[in-house]
Amino acid sequence: MSSVRPADQAFNREAIEAVLKRRFFYGPAFDIYGGVSGLYDYGPPGCALQANIVDTWRKHFVLEEDMLEVDTTMLTPHEVLKTSGHVDKFADWMCKDPATGEIFRADHLVEEVLESRLKGNLEARGLNIDAPKEDDKKRKKKVKEIKVVKLEDEVVEEYETILAKIDGYSGEELGEIIEKYNITNPGSGGKLHPPVAFNLMFETAIGPSGQLKGYLRPETAQGQFLNFSKLLDFNNLKMPFASASIGKSFRNEISPRSGLLRVREFLMAEIEHFVDPKDKRHKRFKEVSDLKLRFLPKDVQAAGKTDITEATIGDAVSSGMVDNETLGYFLGRVFLFLTKIGVNPERLRFRQHMANEMAHYAADCWDAELHSSYGWIECVGTADRSAYDLTVHAARTKEKLVVRETLEEPITVEAFEVDFDKKKFGPKFRKDAPKIENFLTTRNQCELENLGDELTKDGKIVVDIDGVEGKVEIDSSLISIEKKTKTEHIREYTPNVIEPSFGIGRILYCILEHSFWTRPEDSARGVLSFKPLVAPTKVLVVPLSSNEAFAPITQDVISSLRKLGISSKADDSSVSIGKRYSRNDELGTPFGVTIDFQTVKDGSITLRERDSTKQVRGSQKDVLAAIQAMVNGTSWEEGTKDLNVFEGQQE
Amino acid sequence: MSSVRPADQAFNREAIEAVLKRRFFYGPAFDIYGGVSGLYDYGPPGCALQANIVDTWRKHFVLEEDMLEVDTTMLTPHEVLKTSGHVDKFADWMCKDPATGEIFRADHLVEEVLESRLKGNLEARGLNIDAPKEDDKKRKKKVKEIKVVKLEDEVVEEYETILAKIDGYSGEELGEIIEKYNITNPGSGGKLHPPVAFNLMFETAIGPSGQLKGYLRPETAQGQFLNFSKLLDFNNLKMPFASASIGKSFRNEISPRSGLLRVREFLMAEIEHFVDPKDKRHKRFKEVSDLKLRFLPKDVQAAGKTDITEATIGDAVSSGMVDNETLGYFLGRVFLFLTKIGVNPERLRFRQHMANEMAHYAADCWDAELHSSYGWIECVGTADRSAYDLTVHAARTKEKLVVRETLEEPITVEAFEVDFDKKKFGPKFRKDAPKIENFLTTRNQCELENLGDELTKDGKIVVDIDGVEGKVEIDSSLISIEKKTKTEHIREYTPNVIEPSFGIGRILYCILEHSFWTRPEDSARGVLSFKPLVAPTKVLVVPLSSNEAFAPITQDVISSLRKLGISSKADDSSVSIGKRYSRNDELGTPFGVTIDFQTVKDGSITLRERDSTKQVRGSQKDVLAAIQAMVNGTSWEEGTKDLNVFEGQQE
Repeated sequence: MSSVRPADQAFNREAIEAVLKRRFFYGPAFDIYGGVSGLYDYGPPGCALQANIVDTWRKHFVLEEDMLEVDTTMLTPHEVLKTSGHVDKFADWMCKDPATGEIFRADHLVEEVLESRLKGNLEARGLNIDAPKEDDKKRKKKVKEIKVVKLEDEVVEEYETILAKIDGYSGEELGEIIEKYNITNPGSGGKLHPPVAFNLMFETAIGPSGQLKGYLRPETAQGQFLNFSKLLDFNNLKMPFASASIGKSFRNEISPRSGLLRVREFLMAEIEHFVDPKDKRHKRFKEVSDLKLRFLPKDVQAAGKTDITEATIGDAVSSGMVDNETLGYFLGRVFLFLTKIGVNPERLRFRQHMANEMAHYAADCWDAELHSSYGWIECVGTADRSAYDLTVHAARTKEKLVVRETLEEPITVEAFEVDFDKKKFGPKFRKDAPKIENFLTTRNQCELENLGDELTKDGKIVVDIDGVEGKVEIDSSLISIEKKTKTEHIREYTPNVIEPSFGIGRILYCILEHSFWTRPEDSARGVLSFKPLVAPTKVLVVPLSSNEAFAPITQDVISSLRKLGISSKADDSSVSIGKRYSRNDELGTPFGVTIDFQTVKDGSITLRERDSTKQVRGSQKDVLAAIQAMVNGTSWEEGTKDLNVFEGQQE
Repeated sequence: MSSVRPADQAFNREAIEAVLKRRFFYGPAFDIYGGVSGLYDYGPPGCALQANIVDTWRKHFVLEEDMLEVDTTMLTPHEVLKTSGHVDKFADWMCKDPATGEIFRADHLVEEVLESRLKGNLEARGLNIDAPKEDDKKRKKKVKEIKVVKLEDEVVEEYETILAKIDGYSGEELGEIIEKYNITNPGSGGKLHPPVAFNLMFETAIGPSGQLKGYLRPETAQGQFLNFSKLLDFNNLKMPFASASIGKSFRNEISPRSGLLRVREFLMAEIEHFVDPKDKRHKRFKEVSDLKLRFLPKDVQAAGKTDITEATIGDAVSSGMVDNETLGYFLGRVFLFLTKIGVNPERLRFRQHMANEMAHYAADCWDAELHSSYGWIECVGTADRSAYDLTVHAARTKEKLVVRETLEEPITVEAFEVDFDKKKFGPKFRKDAPKIENFLTTRNQCELENLGDELTKDGKIVVDIDGVEGKVEIDSSLISIEKKTKTEHIREYTPNVIEPSFGIGRILYCILEHSFWTRPEDSARGVLSFKPLVAPTKVLVVPLSSNEAFAPITQDVISSLRKLGISSKADDSSVSIGKRYSRNDELGTPFGVTIDFQTVKDGSITLRERDSTKQVRGSQKDVLAAIQAMVNGTSWEEGTKDLNVFEGQQE
């Protein structure tokens, strides 16, 4: 079962939004103050759903694979994010309308305007725009009305090409497109300033003097990288290993929209798997190699297509489409996690990043995208960040962030080395000697080879050295540069990092959409068919009425469930049983227990299943055992096979 | 058992700090960049300990009492925190040394300097300063050396009075003390500027225009208050109820010190219990009323004493020392939670806030303080915030944040009311009519009575009304103001809030201290005696050696434990069993399972208890069952009574 929505039922975003609001899954933060766009609060069911997703994530990844979970700070000093590249490159392009002061995100604006023009063209040509695309609603809000204007065939083609590549344009290119196609403020028609980069990090000052500039982290990853050496120690120096972190990150979006899909503060769960760059095999690869995934590789996209390649992970890796076993292993684990928590596998694809859209640190990246009424949404990025982050932090701080591996067999290496005649070298250069020595000993092999050649040819070398005035001349009586053969017992390397990075809020929203349907007999009765594993509440306990005899039994059922670790809620409000079940169908509560007069007589209770509304009856003990089995994954048919079908109370 | 530390063992902070660092419970954030004071990262065992504390908190409070957990944003717009009072009042006093640029927190500086002078005085008088106070180490760092100077008796008395009241001084008072007692920069002796207020919130700008000023929240509470109406709805309008939230909050400390006890970013868990101000009884009060707590009430402190009053919660409430049942109930629940997770009850007291130290919103407040080597530390504040927050947010936003309760019996109330002769009133005042009508209908009872008197006496009233030019004269042909008798069916009220607020990091640190001891036979062997409930890992699985025969058994034990939901780690490193156990004693792992050659023969395994190092042996099935029972709270004696004592491997 991926969803119980009847095959012919169209998805209705207004209906689900009404349910999510009414049941307070989430709502705009600071609502009574008018709200702040891009900030949302989770109410009780949203908060519980999120907690259950996070709990499953922790069991599926951290506990299952002995990952080292850390909790690092969100406040991050400028220097760290300068080194990582975020200060310079973590930005979007924005355009300002100087007349109104409005600010637009350049790529989104281009996308919206061109799409609405394409739509106007279709109407102008009298073509049937079949079912309105589900994306339309949101777009219409910005581009107020679609002008019915026919476009030349070649313009249509140009627009479509631009839209296919929209994620990959530079600011300058966006500026050219805006200029060339006369894209203006959709509200006022006003001309816009050319795009400028806007850094997406929230800035603040740490400490009372205001001198330590800091940011709210844009990802949890940096905190994990900075602790690499401590984590390697904690892992008794064994490689490969993974760290993990669950926490909030921040992104000062230019103009957030699309509800939970684009927010300024969001929960992430990230894994940094540190691996030997020379050996990216994974010892548990065979556990996922037969899984069949839906891939959208980069060459298909480069050709302007979106055709899916279905393949097993084993084949995807052996054909080279997915770069290595570890990357493939995590794609499989991501797939298993997402489907376990209720993602519809038919609405999940793995899209490879094209070269021009890759984050500044990534060597290869596959996004798990979930389909929603807003289109395909990036929910989990699995990137090979290579050795980028550890290398730049090590270079900046002069702290080694490496693995030292004792070689089973020592190896012989040839390398150029500098030898100093210390007795002459020191006196000759005096206070500059250490700087010059440092300069020579930090040259790479290629540079040393060149310097050695120069020394042999000219009998001296002449170099510029930072902090030493003038040219430095060193003759061959002071140093020698020669290739030597050495035996090494230790191999030192900077690990590569494979990073699966989860946007919990986006996943949660997609699960809401994938789970939502309405009863065919009454479109006002929404149901959220959560899997029991993640459902905010597992069992609703409803006494038939407020009759005093029911209260102690209700309490007893609730506390028996609590002892089994199963979350439940009693609803003894005065509305009808049917109404109470409807309310809980909207909350996604998978099971309902009814207590009635028969219960008082013989202790039997009724158990109802949310999706089918089937009911069975049995002793409290048997029903609770059935619930426990089903919460742990047993099917309804199997779990209730020893209970009696019940058709007493109708809804 | 509260701690297994031998009674005569002195606490050694250096020893525990070495263990916490070595085992990466936590460490300075951005360490390789030199660190940022007040920011710490949790390594794997610290992170797991924190997760277990949070998980227990959620079960103990949220699930047990059906609280409505929410997850609200940290980013908070200026307007919200202006209304709550934080923009104006959430500040500490700081003094700057204009010569060096150093900044000091004024109250801490006064405290440190006076304490060091008192110590110098004792030495000068040749008095035995018995065991050095555990507080000393930290203080010595600031006040470099204690000058041995004898003080007059009356000066000693003045100093002691100041120290007893140090939490209650205003900035001006601190300035006077600094001036009067010539308190200077302890490092340089330089004179300081007078104290100025420093707001402790981190400021940032939301959105691209930079115009929406925001802060990182100083507490999770405001997000809960703002959602009050949605939560009341969600609770089917039933009162009382509680919301709860777990999340990070921020405080830009002037000069953080004391490790985890004073940090700039910290995890909080807060409950907002909304209650009828006229009825603060609690229906589960009797479950805690016989619990005996250690109280330090405000009148004792006002007399400069710290004597503990031991009393049951029932007596404390009935005597009026604790204001009401709900407050008392939560003090009891806080006590049960803290002792459940390993706080030593003898090092826990409930201290009432004195009037002058109360937060700006609090009507009454009791801090659960835990004793540590830094002194008594506020870890849980349980405050009665009255109706403060809901009232100010409602006034600012014009949104009603109230409960409307249908009265069982309608009540009769007498009240002044304004009646308008609409036919004359409208034409007379024209466009100003709505404003004038609004003015009159929003007067309170007392104002209406006065206006009524004026109208009777003068035949008219004359008033100033915002937005209406000049004096407004209204005569008795247009309105009447009379006392009328009305029947009301609805009672409308703003709930009061009882707020237990937990600093998770401080609690975690105190548990570390309360759990730490060293083996009497070897002070280098530290042990952290965590309760199994919160221990980062419950079971260490150690194969005797790297012999191949052990690997599948190790895997089998690990996966059997995982199925039981019990976290475990294998340690198959090549060091001796004793060393491996020592390492895990430092990690606080309560149980150890050894796999040896006998295991290969008959499947039996050894089980070791961390604190006593006792060992027993039995079949894998029996040992795992014993572990499961003990993780759920069964004692070692009870849990292992059917297993055989084992004395094979010595450590």
